[in-house]
Amino acid sequence: MVKALRCLILGGDGYLGWPTAMYLSKRGHEVMVVDNYLHRQLAAECNAPALYSVPDLPERCKLWQATNGIEIRHAIGDVQDYDFLSTITREFLPDTIIHYAEQRSAPFSMKGYQEAKLTLINNLSTTFNLIWVVMRDAPNAHIIKLGTMGEYGTPNIDIEEGWIDIEHKGRKEHFLYPRQGSSLYHTTKIHDTDLLWFYVRMAGLRVTDLMQGPVYGLLTEEIGNNFDLLPFFDYDDIFGTVVNRFVVQAVAGIPLTVYGKGGQTRGFLNILDTLQSIGLVVENPAKPGEMRILNQFTEQFSITEIAKMVQEASASWGIKTEISHLENPRKELEEHYYNASREGLSKLGLKPNFLTKEVLQQMIAVVQKYKDKIDTRSIMPRVRWS
Amino acid sequence: MVKALRCLILGGDGYLGWPTAMYLSKRGHEVMVVDNYLHRQLAAECNAPALYSVPDLPERCKLWQATNGIEIRHAIGDVQDYDFLSTITREFLPDTIIHYAEQRSAPFSMKGYQEAKLTLINNLSTTFNLIWVVMRDAPNAHIIKLGTMGEYGTPNIDIEEGWIDIEHKGRKEHFLYPRQGSSLYHTTKIHDTDLLWFYVRMAGLRVTDLMQGPVYGLLTEEIGNNFDLLPFFDYDDIFGTVVNRFVVQAVAGIPLTVYGKGGQTRGFLNILDTLQSIGLVVENPAKPGEMRILNQFTEQFSITEIAKMVQEASASWGIKTEISHLENPRKELEEHYYNASREGLSKLGLKPNFLTKEVLQQMIAVVQKYKDKIDTRSIMPRVRWS
Repeated sequence: MVKALRCLILGGDGYLGWPTAMYLSKRGHEVMVVDNYLHRQLAAECNAPALYSVPDLPERCKLWQATNGIEIRHAIGDVQDYDFLSTITREFLPDTIIHYAEQRSAPFSMKGYQEAKLTLINNLSTTFNLIWVVMRDAPNAHIIKLGTMGEYGTPNIDIEEGWIDIEHKGRKEHFLYPRQGSSLYHTTKIHDTDLLWFYVRMAGLRVTDLMQGPVYGLLTEEIGNNFDLLPFFDYDDIFGTVVNRFVVQAVAGIPLTVYGKGGQTRGFLNILDTLQSIGLVVENPAKPGEMRILNQFTEQFSITEIAKMVQEASASWGIKTEISHLENPRKELEEHYYNASREGLSKLGLKPNFLTKEVLQQMIAVVQKYKDKIDTRSIMPRVRWS
Repeated sequence: MVKALRCLILGGDGYLGWPTAMYLSKRGHEVMVVDNYLHRQLAAECNAPALYSVPDLPERCKLWQATNGIEIRHAIGDVQDYDFLSTITREFLPDTIIHYAEQRSAPFSMKGYQEAKLTLINNLSTTFNLIWVVMRDAPNAHIIKLGTMGEYGTPNIDIEEGWIDIEHKGRKEHFLYPRQGSSLYHTTKIHDTDLLWFYVRMAGLRVTDLMQGPVYGLLTEEIGNNFDLLPFFDYDDIFGTVVNRFVVQAVAGIPLTVYGKGGQTRGFLNILDTLQSIGLVVENPAKPGEMRILNQFTEQFSITEIAKMVQEASASWGIKTEISHLENPRKELEEHYYNASREGLSKLGLKPNFLTKEVLQQMIAVVQKYKDKIDTRSIMPRVRWS
């Protein structure tokens, strides 16, 4: 057994926050989750229902304790409230703080002024408060920040892990890899990285910034057969990630909607590998003054490749699925070079769960249980990048 | 005469905002200034008095009209208030918007949580609102954003103008030059640049981002002998820029305070060249969809070199001045490579006013008129970077 650490999870009600809490709890760590239910509120306002409703945090923690006999503590509040975060931190004395408490949808951030402003201020303020609370109340705590592979955009050179050595006119320097995102959301994550890197240099913080690709899946070991412990599962145009959305479209019997040519290539990962990665990073923390940036994905696919894989897996369950190319609502390259490094997590010991037909078949099987609840009106793109 | 343009100046009460207003007005442009007096408020709260008090904006505009017979319009309000900025923009219909409305002091941003938060939120929110108001109310307006050479930090390779071509593993890409600032203030300016570049790509905005070095000087042609038209002149540790502070220290008969070894090298410019640069950029706007980044400085000096120049110019007026090396309150390299490009403004026609002995002698002569008002308690560094 690893040494038990005190892990504070900001955004612990979310798609990844809650599974992370269960995973770390099961590994013997002391876990506390914090959330202000912002995602629930925004999803409701956007008419973007999840596939099934999930209990609130107190209820989930109670269920977890009933099932496993282990406590996951919780606090409901906004990380933008400095005093709230500071009080919790001084009481819980975390070794590790995992920061998921951000508005995480690119389309939401492109909807209009209010949505963009909320994304900018929420994401910057939560990261800023976290930095200050750690500097003042928990200077040795390890910050694990969820970034995104989308910070890099789609450059014409290889994507390294956070840093790059540049030789220019006969001289050399080691730089943060230059980044440009394709939505305001992605831009706020670039801001976050710059903010963290500044305070790492000034205050010797210990930071791991995880550049994560789109995640898929919903079942984890900790859930077992207790489906009340399932995470949020969004499949709509605003909050749903692409593999999850395609699986729901297949089950609903509607075409898989590929935006534009579908040559957009990204690094993807199974929810199991998000948990595995977080566990490895929690148990192998960054050193004081270290800004460790790791690319968190396991495989690269184009959107068209994913659509075809979902189509095949559906066919094997007897579901016939069409692929439909929509006019791209986003401004992004639809054909481009993409080759990203992912050595850091491999070296820490990550054993990937790849996107096999079996994985998709299992996802389809679970989603089929909720087939009647699918609201097909929330799937077609409602936000344009102009 | 150039074509008259409608120029809206955000932060028009400041050290550079007000001289810019007079300069553009005299060149035949229609000018409107906007300010919420944030700088006056913060300077008062920090016990950082300017060398002399300056009239408020309505009074300055009245004086200008009385002296020159030309109107400079004004509005008092906060650019963080979207409706305020939008109303002004729809009424004034600017061709150009010059954005000085930011908290511009590095030491202020390093004072504590509240000061850092104010800097982050003010600077990001004003830039964000400006972008949205332009997208909605004035999509053809040219945004001129004051950035800072400090965004680049002190890299070991040449500093280019905003962009760099990187060759990596046999492939090439054109990137925003990688930046890392040495204060939270500088970091917010990096954020601004990323925000502007994102919306340039999305909405085809016309943006010029001016990476300006520390400015010195106070007399401009438009002021003539009417000293009521002088700009703010800060010389304290928080808001004073280094040349101005050294000149005041010399006049006050106290040692010039060099932080650390004094090998810190930066690109400097005369206030006259700020005005000249802004004029050139106003009259040669960026194209739609262009993010033009220009380095705005005319000469590179180390802090020690500047101290020696001020010492010599003072000696020529019969003032004996000592140079004193203080423990550096900042975290920064005190000896480093520094070679920055400044071709863009030269190509537009900038004719530099260099930092000669005569320029310093003139500054000393003007400051001597206010010798009795110098508050030497506000000069020694009160903010540490830790």
